[in-house]
Amino acid sequence: MDKKIASGLLDEIRSKKPLIHHITNYVTVNDCANITICVGASPVMADSIDEVEEMTGIANALVLNIGTLSASLIDSMIAAGKSANRKGIPVILDPVGIGATKFRTESVLRLLKEVKFAVIKGNAGEIGVLAGAQATVRGVDSGSLEGDRVEVAKKCAELTGSVVVMTGEVDIVSDGETVLTVSNGCSRMGALSGTGCMTASVIGAFCAVTDHYLTAAACGVALMGLCGQKAAVYAKGPYSFRAGLADEMSRLKSVEFAVDAKIKHIKP
Amino acid sequence: MDKKIASGLLDEIRSKKPLIHHITNYVTVNDCANITICVGASPVMADSIDEVEEMTGIANALVLNIGTLSASLIDSMIAAGKSANRKGIPVILDPVGIGATKFRTESVLRLLKEVKFAVIKGNAGEIGVLAGAQATVRGVDSGSLEGDRVEVAKKCAELTGSVVVMTGEVDIVSDGETVLTVSNGCSRMGALSGTGCMTASVIGAFCAVTDHYLTAAACGVALMGLCGQKAAVYAKGPYSFRAGLADEMSRLKSVEFAVDAKIKHIKP
Amino acid sequence: MDKKIASGLLDEIRSKKPLIHHITNYVTVNDCANITICVGASPVMADSIDEVEEMTGIANALVLNIGTLSASLIDSMIAAGKSANRKGIPVILDPVGIGATKFRTESVLRLLKEVKFAVIKGNAGEIGVLAGAQATVRGVDSGSLEGDRVEVAKKCAELTGSVVVMTGEVDIVSDGETVLTVSNGCSRMGALSGTGCMTASVIGAFCAVTDHYLTAAACGVALMGLCGQKAAVYAKGPYSFRAGLADEMSRLKSVEFAVDAKIKHIKP
Repeated sequence: MDKKIASGLLDEIRSKKPLIHHITNYVTVNDCANITICVGASPVMADSIDEVEEMTGIANALVLNIGTLSASLIDSMIAAGKSANRKGIPVILDPVGIGATKFRTESVLRLLKEVKFAVIKGNAGEIGVLAGAQATVRGVDSGSLEGDRVEVAKKCAELTGSVVVMTGEVDIVSDGETVLTVSNGCSRMGALSGTGCMTASVIGAFCAVTDHYLTAAACGVALMGLCGQKAAVYAKGPYSFRAGLADEMSRLKSVEFAVDAKIKHIKP
Repeated sequence: MDKKIASGLLDEIRSKKPLIHHITNYVTVNDCANITICVGASPVMADSIDEVEEMTGIANALVLNIGTLSASLIDSMIAAGKSANRKGIPVILDPVGIGATKFRTESVLRLLKEVKFAVIKGNAGEIGVLAGAQATVRGVDSGSLEGDRVEVAKKCAELTGSVVVMTGEVDIVSDGETVLTVSNGCSRMGALSGTGCMTASVIGAFCAVTDHYLTAAACGVALMGLCGQKAAVYAKGPYSFRAGLADEMSRLKSVEFAVDAKIKHIKP
Repeated sequence: MDKKIASGLLDEIRSKKPLIHHITNYVTVNDCANITICVGASPVMADSIDEVEEMTGIANALVLNIGTLSASLIDSMIAAGKSANRKGIPVILDPVGIGATKFRTESVLRLLKEVKFAVIKGNAGEIGVLAGAQATVRGVDSGSLEGDRVEVAKKCAELTGSVVVMTGEVDIVSDGETVLTVSNGCSRMGALSGTGCMTASVIGAFCAVTDHYLTAAACGVALMGLCGQKAAVYAKGPYSFRAGLADEMSRLKSVEFAVDAKIKHIKP
């Protein structure tokens, strides 16, 4: 990928300040709001069925995260998702813990039936469940997965018609045909609650400024990973790492992003 | 304003440790709880209709924030607000994102009809919507507003019968007659989710120890701004800024507050 | 207590990475998730009646916290608690603010009737209400209590059939017969929202790897206190203290825990 594209999109987020509507969990929501500001966008969290459609109507992207799911939240997600689809703004799905309970799996299948997603982001276990592969998901842990990760991500993208991001030591991004890998990031990211959720928010910000969602998704994971790498240099544990990651993102120059984003085309 | 008043009120919060009941959003609630402790008061967050009246009954102030609103939350706010009014303790309203959706606007109008507020705090866009001025609100962003900010704040205070705080580079505080300005604060405060919500909590703590709500509100925004200024000196981004702001507030001496609070009488 | 037991249990948490299911409040939930990771376990937060039983079914311990209670949350807690009892995994209760409202007190009594708890953790006021002693609880504050703290903790353990942890300057841990004291900790812990909730999470992690809950509970409070002590050395306020506490826990060596845990047998 041309590196100028990455820096150009980051510049565009910062000049346009797109509004990213989140319907998300109550565990990591504060970090999602703040990382959205750090990347240069503007967050709004609203989940009441009484206002989600109208809120999506003024937003530039919608991020749905099932971390702390309830029946009424799914209704709100579907209403907001349909509103976003009608308006033509991108919807990002983070199927946290899919496979851990029937309720999560069935809720995601319902979402997939009712809403068209620009990007679906999950760890290997979650994407594996979606792809119907042999996978076990344990809580919201990173899960385990048999089989070739690239093939699973690609298959999931084919099946869903969405760009799929499978996070891991090397992140895999695919639209079902093209496959990109992202090699930014560090081991500390797995030892902090919410890095996955925050990644979805950052992807949402990139999707708000380009309709090339494959590129947007790759830029989102690359930016998170890069800021994580930089914070890991001086972090003494998960909390100083989190503070560092957010602080780094808020001041990362787009030229630096262009140089250090490790995005590779591996297929076709 | 006599500077000894500011330091005296801060001392009083720290000796009396008033209990501040919050019904607030799930995005910034942790920061609200902690900043309440930092100023010297004690927080309690409770929103169930089954207990809000009783909880308000043991509290010294009530803070209502509509950041993540729902129909049942409004019912709880009204029950708690009426209980607070009966008991004679101050109620603070943070009408987050009013104007962004009909649901938010109508909910705030319902609250205003049912509950008497000591202080209403918002940004220029939010206060403008309340004042019926030409205003656009975009999500929970700071909004934009045509017209003279001082006149809008004053008008809003007249219309609502509450002390109005309009936050901004210079904060405006008015009871509809007298107008104060507060010039503490720094640009980092706008780049962190929750500074507005936290400000309402701190105002709540001041209102709990004096019934001169104009003074209390001015002291609250001044204290937040001052601690922000001090943290901005060494902050490297929004997260280290947040940590610094809270840490500074927990150890700020009241005499220092008296010296550095920049509160001015501009009208009448 | 043999110090090798403490270090052995910490090692076991880190090697087994038990899954700790939380149904908790939305104020401190993020800190609970992260401290669970810091101790070496894995958190999952899920409260919908549609999935709590299944989620408990894959968990190794369940932590219930009534900080922001609602009628539907109690139903979820009872369903999850019964599921945990059937499966034989430990359930930890944090009766936040019991006594502050009838709703909290009655909800806890309902929980105690329906669910068997391995450990109940609270401050002196909360444990005192449970023990039926003369106690006043004010919001979620630390409360005050007449009478001998050791006797109250012991009596509460007898009445409930659970191990009881009464936090304070010196923590008291009792199963109704044996009494242990834990002298780790520092004054900063009382000036940060959520240290009590996090302690319950850490206790949950220890209970997941041994069925000697008295020891597990003592280890949990000792570990929190020890990490607090270490963070207090360089903390400049509550937020840098929180970051330090989490960072310290994530890197504390089990041999260091064995040396510095101050757990004493005082009865019988």
